[in-house]
Amino acid sequence: MGWHFRKPGKFLRPVLLLLCCEAVGGEEGMALPAAAAVEVFHTWTLIHDDWIDRSALRRGRPTVHELFVGWEKELQMSPREAHHFGGTVAILAGDLLHGLPSSFLHRLHSEKGLPPEIPLTLIHILETEILSHLLIGEMKDVVYSYFPIEVISSQQVRWIMWQKTAALFSYCGLAGALIGLRTTDRNHPLVKALNSFASLSGIAFQIQDDILGLIADEKILGKPVGSDIREGKKTLPLYLAYRVASPAQKRFLSSIVGNQKSGEKEIQSVVELIRELGGISESQKRAERHIQQAYEVLHPLPPSRYKELLHEWASHLLSREF
Amino acid sequence: MGWHFRKPGKFLRPVLLLLCCEAVGGEEGMALPAAAAVEVFHTWTLIHDDWIDRSALRRGRPTVHELFVGWEKELQMSPREAHHFGGTVAILAGDLLHGLPSSFLHRLHSEKGLPPEIPLTLIHILETEILSHLLIGEMKDVVYSYFPIEVISSQQVRWIMWQKTAALFSYCGLAGALIGLRTTDRNHPLVKALNSFASLSGIAFQIQDDILGLIADEKILGKPVGSDIREGKKTLPLYLAYRVASPAQKRFLSSIVGNQKSGEKEIQSVVELIRELGGISESQKRAERHIQQAYEVLHPLPPSRYKELLHEWASHLLSREF
Repeated sequence: MGWHFRKPGKFLRPVLLLLCCEAVGGEEGMALPAAAAVEVFHTWTLIHDDWIDRSALRRGRPTVHELFVGWEKELQMSPREAHHFGGTVAILAGDLLHGLPSSFLHRLHSEKGLPPEIPLTLIHILETEILSHLLIGEMKDVVYSYFPIEVISSQQVRWIMWQKTAALFSYCGLAGALIGLRTTDRNHPLVKALNSFASLSGIAFQIQDDILGLIADEKILGKPVGSDIREGKKTLPLYLAYRVASPAQKRFLSSIVGNQKSGEKEIQSVVELIRELGGISESQKRAERHIQQAYEVLHPLPPSRYKELLHEWASHLLSREF
Repeated sequence: MGWHFRKPGKFLRPVLLLLCCEAVGGEEGMALPAAAAVEVFHTWTLIHDDWIDRSALRRGRPTVHELFVGWEKELQMSPREAHHFGGTVAILAGDLLHGLPSSFLHRLHSEKGLPPEIPLTLIHILETEILSHLLIGEMKDVVYSYFPIEVISSQQVRWIMWQKTAALFSYCGLAGALIGLRTTDRNHPLVKALNSFASLSGIAFQIQDDILGLIADEKILGKPVGSDIREGKKTLPLYLAYRVASPAQKRFLSSIVGNQKSGEKEIQSVVELIRELGGISESQKRAERHIQQAYEVLHPLPPSRYKELLHEWASHLLSREF
């Protein structure tokens, strides 16, 4: 359970939540348990997703399932047993972490003295709405990877990005604002503004993530580059490139994408083709457009240091290299 | 997600919770959302455990991961891909169901009008205490299956049974009583009594489960018989038999237990040996003793129809054939 936390991530979600709390006049300290909750929530989904996506690397270290395959000798297991054991530990560690966010949110009442309705509402939203979007998004991500590119629509690509990534970002905006305002009213104009801001930023984040997944330096990124191609993931850069490809280029893309046997060289030539066809530059433009929109929806918010920090936070999403 | 519910289980946990609510003077209807919560909580753990234990059968039907291996042709996957896909669906379906109990418990406030502190406390206990016991119990169950029998103590065997099974039973007693009494006070004498009753019954249930896992009729049980032997599970009947076995019998037991290649015939001869050595009859005695103790801890409860029903419920745990 502690494996990923010993080498922490970027804390984008908890920072967003804390800034949203302060931006509506709340106190950062009040929202700390919720900030911890979203980071832990994110982490347990990573542990399960890494098994699902067969990723061996995360934050520059072995993923949980990969780590426990290494118990092979200690427990005198066959390689097949060890493979299963790695999956077992990843499932159980993720499941156990899944319980913590509710416990952290509980502290908003027991330690921070907020009315119990607030954590109860926050738990309810996280464990129904957000969880369903996230897992249904992940399920589609997997199932669509077995489909040919041409049957997926641009709306489906965008909706998956929202579900699997932006939904949790939007929750950070919502939770931060509700805590800062000490309310359970989701229709409060500032709550809606920060919810939209976080949601649009989440899409931009995912687009940048898919770009980095193709062209980043693997050592800086800390996770495998190009594996989305092998896994057949229908990312925006691939989708946009495919749309304008010639019939021969389409055949070439379809022969490599989703083929578990694709080698490094083939993957690299697909990345090059995506770049040539403008899939990367067009994706960058769309990510920037989302950030612009995110700035705009912030207009109901009074000017403050925290509003500025939200701008900085959002622009960092696109300049990051990992 | 709906697969297991279409062929429901025995509803032992929700029934226990509802009876405990009524036994302290509460109204059954008030506790219904919590009853649904414990059944769904139990179900998501089954989906993950079935993958971990490589069980192909549950309630007489294929388990979730087994079911989705069947998508092999539809998604044009290789058998290896299909195996991974089955695991993927089982993980995601379990994860999604894991969110529902919090949502159901939320309704104790939003629909049933209980003070929000009660569902908040119930969610907190379920998602921290109970969840950790359950998953740590499952983890030990798996890890100990790679260990030789002689290094496990009788206390460890009992503690695993408590953690992986009785913890959730004890929660049903606790939750039913807290809801019935409209309190969050875990030290109330009736809450403590029902908590202990449920906890002792849970151990008895698990002992009976392990006995049935050796000698039941597979068609009635609805899940594989003898697979605990192959998986190397350190169940009470095996443990008690091993303790009194001769050196030659010990060697025989150790050669079959935990050996994935053990055939039907070898498994059957292990079951016969466990029976001859008194492992089954001694386990039955212990299960009965736990039920007797469970009756005794109920003494603070005033006599009522519901107290009688709790007795009936507990005695059914041992007479059941599935």
